[in-house]
Amino acid sequence: MANITELKNNLREIGLVDSMNRILNWDQQTYMPDGAAEFRAEQSSYMSRLFHRKLTGDTLRNNLKKFIDLETGNLKKNELSTRNQRMLQEVYRDYRHAISLPQDFVGKLAEAGSRSVQAWKKAKEADDFNLFRPHLEKMVNLEKQKAEYFGYEDKPLDALLDFYEPGMTTKKVTELFVPVKERLTTLAERIKESGKEIDDSFMCNSYPESKQRKLSREMLKTMGYDFDRGRQDVSAHPFTVGFHPTDTRFTNRFAEGCLASSISSAVHEGGHALYEQGLNPDEFGNPLGEAISYGIHESQSRLWENMVGASRPYWQYWLPKLKEYFSDDLEGMTLGEWYRAYNKVEPSLIRVDSDEVHYNLHILVRFEIEDRLINSNFEVKHLPEIWNEKMEHYIGLKPETDTQGVLQDIHWSWGQFGYFPSYSLGTFYSVQIFNQAKEEIPELMDLIARGELIRLKEWLNENVHKLGRRFKAGELIKELTGNEPSSDPFLDYLEEKYSQIYDL
Amino acid sequence: MANITELKNNLREIGLVDSMNRILNWDQQTYMPDGAAEFRAEQSSYMSRLFHRKLTGDTLRNNLKKFIDLETGNLKKNELSTRNQRMLQEVYRDYRHAISLPQDFVGKLAEAGSRSVQAWKKAKEADDFNLFRPHLEKMVNLEKQKAEYFGYEDKPLDALLDFYEPGMTTKKVTELFVPVKERLTTLAERIKESGKEIDDSFMCNSYPESKQRKLSREMLKTMGYDFDRGRQDVSAHPFTVGFHPTDTRFTNRFAEGCLASSISSAVHEGGHALYEQGLNPDEFGNPLGEAISYGIHESQSRLWENMVGASRPYWQYWLPKLKEYFSDDLEGMTLGEWYRAYNKVEPSLIRVDSDEVHYNLHILVRFEIEDRLINSNFEVKHLPEIWNEKMEHYIGLKPETDTQGVLQDIHWSWGQFGYFPSYSLGTFYSVQIFNQAKEEIPELMDLIARGELIRLKEWLNENVHKLGRRFKAGELIKELTGNEPSSDPFLDYLEEKYSQIYDL
Repeated sequence: MANITELKNNLREIGLVDSMNRILNWDQQTYMPDGAAEFRAEQSSYMSRLFHRKLTGDTLRNNLKKFIDLETGNLKKNELSTRNQRMLQEVYRDYRHAISLPQDFVGKLAEAGSRSVQAWKKAKEADDFNLFRPHLEKMVNLEKQKAEYFGYEDKPLDALLDFYEPGMTTKKVTELFVPVKERLTTLAERIKESGKEIDDSFMCNSYPESKQRKLSREMLKTMGYDFDRGRQDVSAHPFTVGFHPTDTRFTNRFAEGCLASSISSAVHEGGHALYEQGLNPDEFGNPLGEAISYGIHESQSRLWENMVGASRPYWQYWLPKLKEYFSDDLEGMTLGEWYRAYNKVEPSLIRVDSDEVHYNLHILVRFEIEDRLINSNFEVKHLPEIWNEKMEHYIGLKPETDTQGVLQDIHWSWGQFGYFPSYSLGTFYSVQIFNQAKEEIPELMDLIARGELIRLKEWLNENVHKLGRRFKAGELIKELTGNEPSSDPFLDYLEEKYSQIYDL
Repeated sequence: MANITELKNNLREIGLVDSMNRILNWDQQTYMPDGAAEFRAEQSSYMSRLFHRKLTGDTLRNNLKKFIDLETGNLKKNELSTRNQRMLQEVYRDYRHAISLPQDFVGKLAEAGSRSVQAWKKAKEADDFNLFRPHLEKMVNLEKQKAEYFGYEDKPLDALLDFYEPGMTTKKVTELFVPVKERLTTLAERIKESGKEIDDSFMCNSYPESKQRKLSREMLKTMGYDFDRGRQDVSAHPFTVGFHPTDTRFTNRFAEGCLASSISSAVHEGGHALYEQGLNPDEFGNPLGEAISYGIHESQSRLWENMVGASRPYWQYWLPKLKEYFSDDLEGMTLGEWYRAYNKVEPSLIRVDSDEVHYNLHILVRFEIEDRLINSNFEVKHLPEIWNEKMEHYIGLKPETDTQGVLQDIHWSWGQFGYFPSYSLGTFYSVQIFNQAKEEIPELMDLIARGELIRLKEWLNENVHKLGRRFKAGELIKELTGNEPSSDPFLDYLEEKYSQIYDL
């Protein structure tokens, strides 16, 4: 048993190094001055290489091989608890990923990523894809190289998909999207044809940033987010980062003055942040103290954003509060009017502003492009065209600028190819998990209607957060709900909700 | 020559690690949530140990011993440029300091320091020295231990003084303060006896924080501080930290709404920040890209704060601007009224709010206490008493609370004993350096009166900043001015200035 402790201490040290990288990243996106970009790239590269060196170094290898055959991945000792066996398998997975990448490559990737994020920011501001293009070309090539290092059976993108969501492949995602594409486009069409107009003219009204900020803080507090172990900042692209369960920070953007957008993104990040704050600090650095997968992480943000924050009971409690914040603009508003406006279905060019019905079609656009970029030799210079084509095909809108189009998301700039499908998976999981919570807490919707969210938070703490990587994503869903992961509950939920809103 | 490059690359890597530590420290003082304190202590400890390991590791040692005899410190090769010889001597100095401290001790010190800062913050807020006491006791013991590791000839504090200002000893500082104490107390007495009352009632008037903030930004821009390579934040204790010449950040505090205090501290930090931004980025990580000493660093902040920012010509340009910012409150104010109020001599309990006449007496209080704490067995629990006694003796005021007394400064909380005298040395240097600048730029005071500060900034860039640690502090003063370091020019300047203001 002493050895497991040694191994865990070793992993804790590696986790410390990783947390430094996250601080660099957080700072770059919130406060770092522009002129520091070159030096930050050097810092990031150094810390990434250090992290990688630790993960592939003699100390970890020697600790690990006491428990596991490093060639086959088979466990050597069987007297270990299931929990620790599982931990070892996940460490082995991370170790295999790390060992497959040469040290130099890791540094190069981090440095290029840091520069590329900076170029993306500038390109987005200047609305000029060409400022970003050479960086993106570099990142695509590096990620293709990474896929080769990781290895795959069928297609290069599989290696990257599997990294974010173990077991995922191009083929599986493509198949998964068949019914989703079908039922979502049908639903969008029916809504459009219903002819029903929802008034949401009051939604974007240059509401003061300070009030939006205060409101979002109040909502997160009510969800159980602990501001003593985290903080709120402003960034171009909202995100959450956990350095440790005692230091989990999230960002918002309020610039647009649109309530639905700033509220839903705050609640979304709140869901991510509760996951990070809910991880077991005693297991910091090892898989038992880490989030399962990007998909499960997204299930937490989506659950809060959609199943809770976009529900009618939620607004039963919050609309009166909202009126206190923005009295002049919202006087006389009924719950029904607000609820319908908040959930108005309207194609948008911007993924993060998208309604629930179109959201996963945005992901599809990205996934199909990633498929081309990584699995074939599609050239980066043609990205704006293909983006615009696909947007028109799936969403029915064509961006007029790069900022409204291909430059909107940060992900590709730091090389996150294969990440987007996790958003859809997370959305599907979120409905399965929430349905289960409702079964186990029969009064859940009443609690939500009274602004009492802590029971749900605690249920998620117990059933998801505290488990770390004790289960794989699919296993967790099966363990929790008795069912395999599926998009059916999500599609059923959507059709029911929007049939009601749009009288279909 | 190839080897010097190798050595410099090695030092650059060590500099990267050090920059991570500075980010941790900056974040802790600006944005870190309270609940993260324990984890931050662990991160700081890890990064400090890593820094120390690199500085004492085989790679550096092997590179270094090609050029220098590691036992004696004698240079081996004489065909090196004077610049590189000097660089090597300074690396050796740092190496000797590092090698004398055991790895474990370094981690323990960083961890205790990080916790202690947090405890100091809480104690200051709660106005309760006892919350801080156990931490301070620990820090005193650790610093005593450090002095033993560093070694000294006469007294333990010498080892710490020398670390911040090479060559300084308890004896030298004591001697240095003899004329200073004498002439300052006499000057303070004469001012008091002059009976002249200066009206500064308008100085603290809850001026809006946002305007103070904007004004300080404008002043720093005019000084030549580059906001593209730095930023301004708010912290309890204003400070400047350079991660790199392209990322040099400073903080202010505006809470009191007192103009003189917020302006002088902004200009002060600006002076530090110009030094850091003016360092040679190509020499990052090695002594040629580093500040000479804490005293010389302080000379830069004091030069801007006092010689420039508290001068009459400075306000000839800035008073009209000030009136634009705070029109209602300052209407009708004459330059003479403002200048006298800004320089009003009035004993204060708080060092950073102190006027120029009393400032170095505040340092004396601290130095005499450090002498007792480190050179004898004076007990931390008696600190508030002795503090209050000495304040009454030298300043003529007795603090009624710990916050207004012994808890006011952050320095001891992270173990900076022997640092305070650098403030006085810096003040003395600043007058010598500024007098030289006036000789070399005869129109300097006219430029200042027109708000044209870039010539001075560039002169400092050339004559101080860019040199890195090419000269030791005393050597630089001698090289620049032809004279040895001395407090006489400072005392002459003070007596002249305040004789004029107070009609002595």
